[in-house]
Amino acid sequence: MASTIVRGRYVVTGVIDENTSNIIENGAVFQRDGEIIEVGPYEEIRSRHQPDEEIGSSDFAVIPGLVNAHHHVGLTPFQLGTLDMPLETWIIARWALRDVDPYLDTLYCAMQMIESGITTVMHNHMMARLPSDAGLYESGARIIEAYEDSGMRVAFSLSHRDQNHLVYEDDERFLATLPATLAQGIRDYLGGRPISLEDHLSVTAELIDKKQSDRTRVFISPHNVHWCSDEMLRAIKEFATRHSTGIHIHLQETVYQKMYGARNWGKTPLAHLADLGFLGPEVSCAHGVWLTEADIDILAETGTAICSNPSSNLRLKSGVAPLNVLLEKGVTVAIGIDEAGLNDDNDILQEMRVAQKIHRVPGVASPALTSHQILDLTTVNGAKVTLFEEQIGRLEPGKRADMVLVRLDRIEEPYLDPDTDIVDALVYRGKGIDVDTVIVDGDVLLRGGRFQKLDKAEIIGRFKETLARPLSPAERRRGDLSRELLPHIQRWFEGWELDRGTPHYFYNERA
Amino acid sequence: MASTIVRGRYVVTGVIDENTSNIIENGAVFQRDGEIIEVGPYEEIRSRHQPDEEIGSSDFAVIPGLVNAHHHVGLTPFQLGTLDMPLETWIIARWALRDVDPYLDTLYCAMQMIESGITTVMHNHMMARLPSDAGLYESGARIIEAYEDSGMRVAFSLSHRDQNHLVYEDDERFLATLPATLAQGIRDYLGGRPISLEDHLSVTAELIDKKQSDRTRVFISPHNVHWCSDEMLRAIKEFATRHSTGIHIHLQETVYQKMYGARNWGKTPLAHLADLGFLGPEVSCAHGVWLTEADIDILAETGTAICSNPSSNLRLKSGVAPLNVLLEKGVTVAIGIDEAGLNDDNDILQEMRVAQKIHRVPGVASPALTSHQILDLTTVNGAKVTLFEEQIGRLEPGKRADMVLVRLDRIEEPYLDPDTDIVDALVYRGKGIDVDTVIVDGDVLLRGGRFQKLDKAEIIGRFKETLARPLSPAERRRGDLSRELLPHIQRWFEGWELDRGTPHYFYNERA
Repeated sequence: MASTIVRGRYVVTGVIDENTSNIIENGAVFQRDGEIIEVGPYEEIRSRHQPDEEIGSSDFAVIPGLVNAHHHVGLTPFQLGTLDMPLETWIIARWALRDVDPYLDTLYCAMQMIESGITTVMHNHMMARLPSDAGLYESGARIIEAYEDSGMRVAFSLSHRDQNHLVYEDDERFLATLPATLAQGIRDYLGGRPISLEDHLSVTAELIDKKQSDRTRVFISPHNVHWCSDEMLRAIKEFATRHSTGIHIHLQETVYQKMYGARNWGKTPLAHLADLGFLGPEVSCAHGVWLTEADIDILAETGTAICSNPSSNLRLKSGVAPLNVLLEKGVTVAIGIDEAGLNDDNDILQEMRVAQKIHRVPGVASPALTSHQILDLTTVNGAKVTLFEEQIGRLEPGKRADMVLVRLDRIEEPYLDPDTDIVDALVYRGKGIDVDTVIVDGDVLLRGGRFQKLDKAEIIGRFKETLARPLSPAERRRGDLSRELLPHIQRWFEGWELDRGTPHYFYNERA
Repeated sequence: MASTIVRGRYVVTGVIDENTSNIIENGAVFQRDGEIIEVGPYEEIRSRHQPDEEIGSSDFAVIPGLVNAHHHVGLTPFQLGTLDMPLETWIIARWALRDVDPYLDTLYCAMQMIESGITTVMHNHMMARLPSDAGLYESGARIIEAYEDSGMRVAFSLSHRDQNHLVYEDDERFLATLPATLAQGIRDYLGGRPISLEDHLSVTAELIDKKQSDRTRVFISPHNVHWCSDEMLRAIKEFATRHSTGIHIHLQETVYQKMYGARNWGKTPLAHLADLGFLGPEVSCAHGVWLTEADIDILAETGTAICSNPSSNLRLKSGVAPLNVLLEKGVTVAIGIDEAGLNDDNDILQEMRVAQKIHRVPGVASPALTSHQILDLTTVNGAKVTLFEEQIGRLEPGKRADMVLVRLDRIEEPYLDPDTDIVDALVYRGKGIDVDTVIVDGDVLLRGGRFQKLDKAEIIGRFKETLARPLSPAERRRGDLSRELLPHIQRWFEGWELDRGTPHYFYNERA
């Protein structure tokens, strides 16, 4: 229990509109026991409050804590040995990745995120990355404990799927086309650890019951529309309503997923979700690259949100999401790194910049995301989709004290025009390495770039030790299976003639 | 005069094909007086040569020096006070930028480039950024001297234009549509420093005569097709042939430039250049975003190169260049940062990654640039377009000793799958901050991240001093003029209905 004054040359309390943020020059935030009590000019705040501690100086900008609105795990697929691929093959290549300790993997990545100014994350855990010898509840609980130890806020979910595990059709129909030994190997692998919908719901309920706290929300997550039966989607919607929690789902990430909808239901996967009564303000959808104009209207009407992942969409050949159109129509959009980001290092400031630049459509009058909009997506909208909207997103009295101090020296080196808006400076030039201090709920997690409660070197050392052991027979078998299966997956999708309709965006031209 | 062994855990001597580079594990390069004498396993090289000095260790990867194939000046427009805009308005907003000392501006930026592993740059100087009180020759010579002092290789050109200075039509016709006082102010500004084609040719000839050296080439540069009369383009082609030098030109950077061609010549600007007999292997074209399939065939047939600038193309709303198609058709493509890059910091490793990720087109069988291709574009192809092909691009006996040592610790932290190709590791995860040592012609420019011959702090201090003075009346007048003119420019281009044909790439879809 303590009080702090946090000061900076600029205190950005929040975004006002697409061209303006509320910026207090030589400003300060006074917080007590994690609650923001007052925000204003430093001299005034200083004269009215006697804090236990004062943090910051005119070398810093103070901004609300940033939200990474879509994330999976720690070490990236590239670190574990998989190059960027199209999502449809990449997800099979992931089978080959070695097991990692979920606690250390999460804690390592939480440190990376904190170092770039992330205070809240939407963590959606992919089941393929759970160690096969641990129970489902225990694995989820360990991941949440890593976030608890890191000090971050998290909206956590375990993702679940009950169909189409290999390609976008029934597993047995696809397996029937494979060599018999390969098919049997895959059956053994997929059947090796059956998790029923009932298991999934009861484990999620138990996590909600035992692990939710001020900084932790537990969501429920069907993996993606084509991977889930209608029955499962209905049960999950009902579960979320009953537990008053959020639903996080992947949606129309690739052109194949959109086309699957047309083939299967005669409509997009999102339209199918609408028919099921699945959508609503508690639902956030990752990616949403291949959204039609009608889809975007549905999102706006139902209050369903999109968590966009620009770098991941490039790396996995998914494409570029129609962010300008989504924002024009009033859809809630947040930004996620999706476990890697452009530089494979989970830097949210870098991802904010990618989001800003990639959606700049040719034409002098075409829309373009301002830096203020980008900051809004990663603060207020991030807070909305993680259901922390009441607590965070702005530096205002009554909100929780989640904030980041960014050093200005490198950003302004050797010269920065004195009329430059500090929000533009951060979005155009800021990087994780500029983050000095990170505070969550008034607790100082990082200061001077150093963790205050975690021994980073020790944690990384421990993590490295677990990674030094040779691959187990099960890991090697899984890797062999994945490598043998991959060309079949590739060929199956090559059989689809891709849609070539009119794009939302228009970056170049053939004739 | 000295000899060195340069060693690394990996020595990447050059790219073999799109999936392979020649990589010597625990390798070394022996160079004497700037010439590479032998490359091979460290133990063998060590047993055969007694160098004056040994550089490197197993902590490093050694790669050929990287080439930034399109660049203008030092401080970025953002640093000087201009946000990203569409090229057509941005180029007018640049009038408002304050004057900078060309020597210090260049030297500052050369240091930035060296720190990210760039050893050779295509520097194309925009005339609007020359101080109005210095002669043309003196300005060019000072910029080249900055490169000499930095130790970098440079292909330098002063860009020239003789028409359409405001919008894409005759100046006087456009000025007639403006309020009379504004029009007169612009006439005074444009007429304030007339540089004739004869001046341009004679100054370029003088720079070739006096400033060319082992590390410096002087090119000639018409700014862009629509900015140059046919007469000027013919004279420049003739000049380049007579002086056996290169031509660097901007080409079809935006959709408006492509449409100007259709309106003016009934064909693309590139087809117009072909008609003029302008193209050839000595010609490199910056950007080339709006190239048709027929244009790409012309480039391939004439051996004309493209210097692509992916980040700049996003920032200035130009679009995404059809790199996959260019490479498929055998066009020489190099990569340039265009004075800023994604992060406004001239990091070529970052730009290589942007180039790799942005051209990943949806579809499991669609092309995607491998890391080896990306390295080839920034080494061998960069050497081709700067006309240093004989000297650099690969670490091979007989080539000049331009190389970069990249620290592996951060890239491999905390784990990197042991089967990972080091070229993938560098392109997926490398950043300027990982560059430790940079060598040009055997001279060590940077070591342990520190400049060996330059006093960085002193240079930056001196640069800052020149930037601390208040704006001059002339700078303020120019800024006011630019701000008053901008809405008129914007409106003029808003009058163009944009082409919406079939794109080369297809990132999303409306229906």
